[in-house]
Amino acid sequence: MDMNQQWQRPLLDDRLTPYIEIDAARLEDNLQTMQDKASRAGVKLRPHIKTHKSLYIARRQRLLGACGITVSKPAEGEVFIRGGERDILLAYPVVRAESVASLLKLAAQHQAKVTLIVDAPHGVAAIAETSRQQPDADVAVAIKVDVGLHRIGVDPHRDDAVALAQALQATQLRFAGLVSHAGHAYGAGNPEAIAEIAQEEARLMQRVQRKLREAGFTDCPLSVGATPTALAAPVAAGTDEIRPGNYALLDLTACRLGLSRVNDLALSVIARVVAVNDRFAIIDAGSKMLSSDKGPHGTNASGFGIAVDESGVCYEIAKLSEEHGFLIWQDNAPRVGSVLRIYPNHSCAVMAQSDSYVLRHADGRAEVQPVDARGCFL
Amino acid sequence: MDMNQQWQRPLLDDRLTPYIEIDAARLEDNLQTMQDKASRAGVKLRPHIKTHKSLYIARRQRLLGACGITVSKPAEGEVFIRGGERDILLAYPVVRAESVASLLKLAAQHQAKVTLIVDAPHGVAAIAETSRQQPDADVAVAIKVDVGLHRIGVDPHRDDAVALAQALQATQLRFAGLVSHAGHAYGAGNPEAIAEIAQEEARLMQRVQRKLREAGFTDCPLSVGATPTALAAPVAAGTDEIRPGNYALLDLTACRLGLSRVNDLALSVIARVVAVNDRFAIIDAGSKMLSSDKGPHGTNASGFGIAVDESGVCYEIAKLSEEHGFLIWQDNAPRVGSVLRIYPNHSCAVMAQSDSYVLRHADGRAEVQPVDARGCFL
Repeated sequence: MDMNQQWQRPLLDDRLTPYIEIDAARLEDNLQTMQDKASRAGVKLRPHIKTHKSLYIARRQRLLGACGITVSKPAEGEVFIRGGERDILLAYPVVRAESVASLLKLAAQHQAKVTLIVDAPHGVAAIAETSRQQPDADVAVAIKVDVGLHRIGVDPHRDDAVALAQALQATQLRFAGLVSHAGHAYGAGNPEAIAEIAQEEARLMQRVQRKLREAGFTDCPLSVGATPTALAAPVAAGTDEIRPGNYALLDLTACRLGLSRVNDLALSVIARVVAVNDRFAIIDAGSKMLSSDKGPHGTNASGFGIAVDESGVCYEIAKLSEEHGFLIWQDNAPRVGSVLRIYPNHSCAVMAQSDSYVLRHADGRAEVQPVDARGCFL
Repeated sequence: MDMNQQWQRPLLDDRLTPYIEIDAARLEDNLQTMQDKASRAGVKLRPHIKTHKSLYIARRQRLLGACGITVSKPAEGEVFIRGGERDILLAYPVVRAESVASLLKLAAQHQAKVTLIVDAPHGVAAIAETSRQQPDADVAVAIKVDVGLHRIGVDPHRDDAVALAQALQATQLRFAGLVSHAGHAYGAGNPEAIAEIAQEEARLMQRVQRKLREAGFTDCPLSVGATPTALAAPVAAGTDEIRPGNYALLDLTACRLGLSRVNDLALSVIARVVAVNDRFAIIDAGSKMLSSDKGPHGTNASGFGIAVDESGVCYEIAKLSEEHGFLIWQDNAPRVGSVLRIYPNHSCAVMAQSDSYVLRHADGRAEVQPVDARGCFL
């Protein structure tokens, strides 16, 4: 590929490769920009930590004004409660009481608040059971609405949400409003189409909210969450909370969707060229480092990332083995032994595989931080 | 999908999901079968541990007769030396002395032998430097030959190998023969085509061996390594060592290539159904557990694995989010809360993401084992 100034950045060769580098200044800018957007709209920001799994980054988000965090799995919640977070939304359906027993016990010990979600009666029963076993835990339950991803959530065109709210009431569980995730926005292709999905999400959520209010559930806050909608659209009127995650680090998927400039990308992987042949240049980062993700939720990039040298010469990563990446080069082969900066398709997938990352400060200083909640699948 | 007896296996719901389950009996059968094949052919077996990253499995391989192990990265080698292995081949090009300094220091302390590989003069220089710094380490150097993957290795049609062997001699490094990896065999599509690749690999390796012998390097053992060629073809005459990895666990890629029966698959992921809607059934394992791999080296499955219930009803995994899998169901929706067994495309990619696996014994007993070398990217 050609030299391209927008990709050009200094590259320090000061440690063994490969490793994740997070640009501290860009990270801080991304965090501040989203917090400003939430604050201006008068809504709470509850970032999803699945993107970074880092206590350090969550603490920065909280100090800038986040009201709490969103996690995917109970084990992530436990790591973040131990790390100092006190207001956790578990955005994952509970189908067995055992799944959240340990989380609620820990929350009770640390006086942390936990909001769980349900989309079916079995979820209410499971939460009621675990809540009885942990009466000291501060538990609330939100109803998940399917706004188009067709993954989890009640159908907004039916009355399931009202029935669930009544079931929560009958079991004396505290109702915490409605949550949605418009993850299908990643497949919409451009900011205008994504903004339409955000509007449709707001319409569907308000429709369910009206039904609940008519049924007597007047305190029904709306929490929506996805980075594409949070970046591409204004915060919809009537929203109470937003829960984006990827905005902290961003990646090539966000760039391709027109949601991020190259200059906003806070995460990259630093890799070294270990061989060059007539067809490819080979780097020491493969699918175990970069993941095989072509993008979230079925979006589909042509390759596995863009590699850039210090002068801004770019190479597409055409293939990955487990520990090698295959770069296509045309006129300029990169030099064996040199380091390249890789912009991956999906930053969440990259963070999830490494034990640590390097926080690179503006003065070049490298601070190693753990990926605290890596491997929390339970 | 339909009920299919070949997929049917007992499913114990005895722990939180998702987790990797390795069938102890199938694992042992796979290890024994490959060891028998190597022993009958009179060659050494040096399994690649990148597949399992498990000290327990490597120890089983050694006790059955393996001569040592193959690793991808120096950090993996360190884990396995600390875990008791004493003969390590690092199948990765060394381009900087610093990369292997720590490995060679540890090897010297534990009297472990380390074989490194080179495919270019800078590699010889780097190894010579680190070897001077660790004079007590038992180091040998093999030359990597590119037999068609076009990733790493000297071109067998040129005289580079002879020049490299002479450079090794000049720097007093011990020459350990030739190594190859026919990873492109994964793209060949069927056992016959894979067997042809194995024959071509043998021809190319013997061609380079002849040139080296003519140049005076008479002690030039041949080490070849890839599971497809090891399963699809007899061990080629003249071979001294084979280095397959995936054969220990196998996966859907091996099945699709006709290299493995379903009954040989030792690794699966146990996941739970957390929601069912009109379009999909949703399980609690996504790309962070199963990986987004469609297969090794650019092979390309239609989905992300096959999910099977206890009766043998099969569902294709059509999409993955980070923590959710989307199953296609037609007549029988699986029951929310039930567990399913997932056969993934690529077992190496699955093992690389988890901290542990469950070794399931024939009596149902579950033994949790660590994935000891997970995250060893350096």
